[in-house]
Amino acid sequence: MKIGIWGYGNLGRGVECAVKYHSDASLVGVFTRRPPESVKTVSGVPVYSVDEIDRFKGEIDVLILCGGSATDLPEMTPALARDFNVVDSFDTHAKIPEHFERVDAEAKKYGHTALISAGWDPGLFSIARVYSQAVLPNGKDYTFWGKGVSQGHSDAIRRIAGVVDARQYTVPIDSAIDAVRAGECPEFTTRQKHRRECYVVAKEGADLDRIEREIKEMPNYFADYDTSVTFVSIDELRENHRGLPHGGSVIRSGVSGFENENGHTIEFSLKLDSNPEFTASVLVAYARAVFRMYSRGDYGCKTVLDVCPADLSQMSGDELRKHLL
Amino acid sequence: MKIGIWGYGNLGRGVECAVKYHSDASLVGVFTRRPPESVKTVSGVPVYSVDEIDRFKGEIDVLILCGGSATDLPEMTPALARDFNVVDSFDTHAKIPEHFERVDAEAKKYGHTALISAGWDPGLFSIARVYSQAVLPNGKDYTFWGKGVSQGHSDAIRRIAGVVDARQYTVPIDSAIDAVRAGECPEFTTRQKHRRECYVVAKEGADLDRIEREIKEMPNYFADYDTSVTFVSIDELRENHRGLPHGGSVIRSGVSGFENENGHTIEFSLKLDSNPEFTASVLVAYARAVFRMYSRGDYGCKTVLDVCPADLSQMSGDELRKHLL
Repeated sequence: MKIGIWGYGNLGRGVECAVKYHSDASLVGVFTRRPPESVKTVSGVPVYSVDEIDRFKGEIDVLILCGGSATDLPEMTPALARDFNVVDSFDTHAKIPEHFERVDAEAKKYGHTALISAGWDPGLFSIARVYSQAVLPNGKDYTFWGKGVSQGHSDAIRRIAGVVDARQYTVPIDSAIDAVRAGECPEFTTRQKHRRECYVVAKEGADLDRIEREIKEMPNYFADYDTSVTFVSIDELRENHRGLPHGGSVIRSGVSGFENENGHTIEFSLKLDSNPEFTASVLVAYARAVFRMYSRGDYGCKTVLDVCPADLSQMSGDELRKHLL
Repeated sequence: MKIGIWGYGNLGRGVECAVKYHSDASLVGVFTRRPPESVKTVSGVPVYSVDEIDRFKGEIDVLILCGGSATDLPEMTPALARDFNVVDSFDTHAKIPEHFERVDAEAKKYGHTALISAGWDPGLFSIARVYSQAVLPNGKDYTFWGKGVSQGHSDAIRRIAGVVDARQYTVPIDSAIDAVRAGECPEFTTRQKHRRECYVVAKEGADLDRIEREIKEMPNYFADYDTSVTFVSIDELRENHRGLPHGGSVIRSGVSGFENENGHTIEFSLKLDSNPEFTASVLVAYARAVFRMYSRGDYGCKTVLDVCPADLSQMSGDELRKHLL
């Protein structure tokens, strides 16, 4: 399958990396809103302006959209689904139904297959929730995130006056995870599930107490959490906090038996050195599924919940049954 | 959907329990090879002879086959797929391709949907292997089982002269799991991944040294493992080892980046108080998927790898996108 990459930030570069592990995939090009001559790809794949994308109609089997969920994808996914099969990583949970409807209308009208909200949450974590709820209807599930860098929270700190740069880690609380794994089905406040660690580079002479207070009192982002703030030098931040690790767990515990006498726990966990590269790896696997569904005439908008595991694999059904079942 | 249960051992009773958690499912009856009047169901659902099953054609949406993989299912799944949609838990990994072909031929010929090898391994573990390999093609996965009771190994001990009863636990080796979680991609011998704990009740006056030696030297079952043998009284066995707990983990670690510089670990784990009741819970979720696939005219033999997550859920696509994605 021939893959195009729309947008070339961390995620787009991740897709560029990931494609080389898939022997059935090759890259046609990267499409950017920047001047193409200003963008150099790591693998040397050609760079085009997004304005040129029309002439690649029919030459790209699946276009992977690596834009942001706030403004890029709500507009671009439905628009590009007219001319291409597309995959995106739209991750604004509350707006997924609306995004789905808009993409579905265009994809069906123009006879393409589009898959939205691939990645790990939404994505593999959503899948884990659906499987575990289906198998253990009488139970409760929990999602823990981290330890990992939240880019939204890091950005929020950077907007505070006197802050040069910042990195925020979301850290799950071990005792909470242990209680869930033990099948206790606890009720948690926000503060009991996660804490937030902030590493902040301040301008020389800035009022550190004020910065720390502004972070800790910021509504939605930090006020409901136990938050620690550590001031570091710019060199320290670059040296010790340059990666974008992340991960987390979806854990469901539930019961069976005539008297609910037997307890079971299902856990799905990720530990990722690079959040964007892993997300990109998921996007490429779903590009394969999209291409297969399109080839079968299964048009319209899909999510990861509509894709069977076999469609993600390079193996045939015979091979899967022989080696992986 | 109207469910029938074929076979009423631990697994059949598990299905009987599990159905009550699924508000869209009801039980038509249990079908047994024993005299029906000798079988009393826990919930009071009627019991019929397997010879009567023909007259339930059209009244059962999905028949869940709770027979053994050695002799029952190879014969019964293809035979019953002529008149019913069926789900089985066929778990002889090496014979799955052959079983698939036979069931597929009958199901397609008679216009039914059949799903084989549901449960957790094969089943949810197979799914975890396919997802994680698709997302991280450059990596390695490991399956650990336990701590849990292996019924096949317990039976093998019971066949030794002088043994009254026995329970065998398969126990994963913690240091091996830790190495895999750390992304070290180690190579293991059989002995390095699992050990075997045996609790044995001997006849009075039996030669305990001989029994222990015969267990530890038994080829395939025990010879390749570090095996411990503990002799216990029949009361102790009944008191401390009556359950059928099991579980395990599928762990894949793999790399991304242009220089394979970033490592990722995907882990799927189960901790089960009752192996048969959990397996039964999986069978009921797949009965729902089978009924939906049948309703869409998607006939033939399927495995868990051919079923999309959404088809397992009681929720509609709209609800899933709104609440679980």
